Amino acid sequence: MVEEIGKTAEEMGKEQRQIAVSEFFEKNRHLLGYDNPTKALLTVVKELVDNSLDAAEEARILPRIWVEVKPNGPDRFRVMIKDNGPGLVDKQIPLALGKLLYGSKFFRLRQSRGQQGIGGSGAILYSQLTTGKPTTLISSTGNKKTSHYEMMIDVKKNEPEIISHQILEDGREWHGLKVEMEIEGRYIESRQGIPEYIKQVAIGNPFAEIVFEGPNGKMEFPRAVNELPPIPKEIMPHPHGVELGILRRMMKSTKSRTIASFMTNDFSRIGSGTANEICKLAGIDPKISPGRLEVEDTEKLFKAMQKVKLVRPPTDCLSPLGEEMMVKGLKKELYAEFFAAVTRPPEVYRGNPFQIECAIAFGGQLPADQPIKVVRLSNRVPLIYQEGDCAITKAISGTDWKRYGLQQSGRSIPVGPAVIMVHIVSVWVPFLSESKQAVAAYPDIMKEIKLSLQELGRNLQHHVAGKRKMEMQQRRKEIFDRYLPEVANAVGKLTNKPAEPILNKLRSIIKKNTEVIVDDRSKEEVGNAG
Amino acid sequence: MVEEIGKTAEEMGKEQRQIAVSEFFEKNRHLLGYDNPTKALLTVVKELVDNSLDAAEEARILPRIWVEVKPNGPDRFRVMIKDNGPGLVDKQIPLALGKLLYGSKFFRLRQSRGQQGIGGSGAILYSQLTTGKPTTLISSTGNKKTSHYEMMIDVKKNEPEIISHQILEDGREWHGLKVEMEIEGRYIESRQGIPEYIKQVAIGNPFAEIVFEGPNGKMEFPRAVNELPPIPKEIMPHPHGVELGILRRMMKSTKSRTIASFMTNDFSRIGSGTANEICKLAGIDPKISPGRLEVEDTEKLFKAMQKVKLVRPPTDCLSPLGEEMMVKGLKKELYAEFFAAVTRPPEVYRGNPFQIECAIAFGGQLPADQPIKVVRLSNRVPLIYQEGDCAITKAISGTDWKRYGLQQSGRSIPVGPAVIMVHIVSVWVPFLSESKQAVAAYPDIMKEIKLSLQELGRNLQHHVAGKRKMEMQQRRKEIFDRYLPEVANAVGKLTNKPAEPILNKLRSIIKKNTEVIVDDRSKEEVGNAG
Repeated sequence: MVEEIGKTAEEMGKEQRQIAVSEFFEKNRHLLGYDNPTKALLTVVKELVDNSLDAAEEARILPRIWVEVKPNGPDRFRVMIKDNGPGLVDKQIPLALGKLLYGSKFFRLRQSRGQQGIGGSGAILYSQLTTGKPTTLISSTGNKKTSHYEMMIDVKKNEPEIISHQILEDGREWHGLKVEMEIEGRYIESRQGIPEYIKQVAIGNPFAEIVFEGPNGKMEFPRAVNELPPIPKEIMPHPHGVELGILRRMMKSTKSRTIASFMTNDFSRIGSGTANEICKLAGIDPKISPGRLEVEDTEKLFKAMQKVKLVRPPTDCLSPLGEEMMVKGLKKELYAEFFAAVTRPPEVYRGNPFQIECAIAFGGQLPADQPIKVVRLSNRVPLIYQEGDCAITKAISGTDWKRYGLQQSGRSIPVGPAVIMVHIVSVWVPFLSESKQAVAAYPDIMKEIKLSLQELGRNLQHHVAGKRKMEMQQRRKEIFDRYLPEVANAVGKLTNKPAEPILNKLRSIIKKNTEVIVDDRSKEEVGNAG
Repeated sequence: MVEEIGKTAEEMGKEQRQIAVSEFFEKNRHLLGYDNPTKALLTVVKELVDNSLDAAEEARILPRIWVEVKPNGPDRFRVMIKDNGPGLVDKQIPLALGKLLYGSKFFRLRQSRGQQGIGGSGAILYSQLTTGKPTTLISSTGNKKTSHYEMMIDVKKNEPEIISHQILEDGREWHGLKVEMEIEGRYIESRQGIPEYIKQVAIGNPFAEIVFEGPNGKMEFPRAVNELPPIPKEIMPHPHGVELGILRRMMKSTKSRTIASFMTNDFSRIGSGTANEICKLAGIDPKISPGRLEVEDTEKLFKAMQKVKLVRPPTDCLSPLGEEMMVKGLKKELYAEFFAAVTRPPEVYRGNPFQIECAIAFGGQLPADQPIKVVRLSNRVPLIYQEGDCAITKAISGTDWKRYGLQQSGRSIPVGPAVIMVHIVSVWVPFLSESKQAVAAYPDIMKEIKLSLQELGRNLQHHVAGKRKMEMQQRRKEIFDRYLPEVANAVGKLTNKPAEPILNKLRSIIKKNTEVIVDDRSKEEVGNAG
């Protein structure tokens, strides 16, 4: 039943065309973190700092990063990020920053801050969208030449649009990248602002030196350690994390000539014994060429791979901060009376190795009547927005903190003088959106976060209980002190001896007891922080 | 300071390459709604039904849709969606469904269910990822020929991979599209399951006939009305919603020869008078060619466009359900004692016209001791997941329902025997992720939802107050009934008249009063629902 002026299939077909990924994200810019001017300013800084840290770490350079954010008219800012990293090869600059979904991190299983190849180019896209101006890119690889680009993105093609380009043979002894752009933004200094973000970057990356020059002055974050963490290794996919469709694709593109060698070469944790076991279980000849397998046989192989018992994925692909580093990081920024940290052993979700660690700062000058402050880190990157949706926040709310000495009503963030930091490291962190501000609550991840928090909670409870005990002892001591002379007098009269020596003896007994308690306590602290 | 075996800029450059959008969404499949088997099954059905409804509406065909979901092994389902829509032209089939980010809806400002060109192809991507199998596509445009495809997606290229293709000249009198695929999934019948989803589709699209054959039997949803809603018109962008970067691009690609004609042709709500006013304000010659304008002048023009007072965007691009249709939809599915609906006038966020409407069903057989049920619709599409993150849920929690007669503790979903439905229609609904399950809480949108809910709340309060008054009258009547004989006796003795006629008279007075109240109440209901 056709009525009115309905369109035909032919007419509809003519209207369809490819949507460039840059067009998609320009229209959906909130997916990249550009929903409002405050968040946008943070996102630009965050994406460029992430890239700088990744590049320096990969080139084994101790990072030094300059961040400048200067007002340039109402709701307008000039943002500049400069690093001492390896720099970019001249012809790579337009591609690496002028094309969305372009990069190297997406394809490998290795812990890094960026993973999607849209961070840097997304920032340039936002800049040109709100100001219509090109971004300036200056880079040198240390070859005494410097590349200068003014660049925009051709949104309909997702290609770099080079406005100007020159290579200066300036002989400067410098390597690194400098990015400068103008954007629409709003600057705040509160909880979700750039200073707080950079403070958390410094906690998560104590080997980085960061200088921030904002609208209200300069802040410097020196290094807490002078050594880079070990570089995380790249791994092959684990058979238990691979999906049927991916397995089929791997089999088509592999260079291995037999199913058996394909399994040992292209996966981690499969030796030739296991490979033969899997083939036997699937009823497949291990010497057949992987490209020749039918869909049904691939499925049999896939199922056999899932059934066979395998060693967990290797974990040298992960680089956690470690308990000592976390406590150092917190101590540098917070005045508290108690610090503790827990780094859990690595675990696996969907075949991806991941590891959870957490730390707490408690008491001292931290405010006691407010919800605790939560610091969320993912591969050393602070997560600032979407706190409520994040697996980390959910795990904290879902933990019973009353038993560990904090106040808590129902399943909410506990109240007390504490800062809790949770760090997830993984070769692939599952984020809730492209803006990478919240971790998806996969059951395996939630479980590990909760276990780490419980361990942390027991440390806290121990400290709080010790503190209470000491306070009680102190009160008892004060009572003794007050009544001791009278007691000594009475004992003196009863025993017919002078009161003075009795009083001294009593005092020394009490002093000894309280000292023991204080010693115990300081031992605990060292143990927890170590 | 370079140490260890750090990579050089050259080495890093060689590792970089383009990431296909299909690779991106395969790895980030949770962004498309494929995080777990239960949600995945729903998402596949939802995306394909959305497409069927959009196509039928655009071709002005009263839609009839068959949905089949049949188990096919453990955690495996065969999903089939067939419609009576316009069908797809043979050569368009692989492009429309075998390529992510391909379509027509993205580029126009018109209300439709789909908008991104990734729904259908995303479903195929998920199918091949979890089962390794191709999808079957069968379509005819009513030309007595039928196209048959077996298709997969070449994920590394984001291109269709045709497994088999034939055109049968079968002479069948049919037009429409049939999609059949196998996926990993889990079937549930509770709140977030397919039956509930289809029930809500039927409420939001009362002109559609839907037949669902699930694992537990057949459900049929006949049409409630036999007329399509008017087709929403496509509009030009409103000057107040355009961004500087977009304006620059529009100026480069326009066919208009002067700035003045560019503004009147390529935007809505700019006449030649306003065009000249804008040019004057910006200090720009209206006869200059748009392509010739410098960045600085474009910015001046942009600012002038924002300053000038303009008529709001046209609203015939929106097609709300309307109050009558909403009440009909709810009445069809729910046994309640009171129904009311509110459709607000259209409003604008970021230059995009949108409109909010809401409806309530109250009392009757609805459970009184649980949180109310919320039905969220966006351009007639039910939103099932991410309820907590959605602007609609936030607006409901943020409304004070105690004053309207529901229980509520703090800022939470109220408790009571009610179902509240909220529908947002817009030429561009801002979603929190590509899976389109939650509306972003833009202030303008939040405000409108709250206003609509308050209006609905006042209707409810009126009804609840009337009901309470009636109950009180009823109680008073019962008391009268009990004491009336004694009163009549006493009056009889005092006046020396027989008690019987006095009793009858008293009874008739009371009956009359309560009847008036009942009448009032039924009048109100009609008024609210109309």
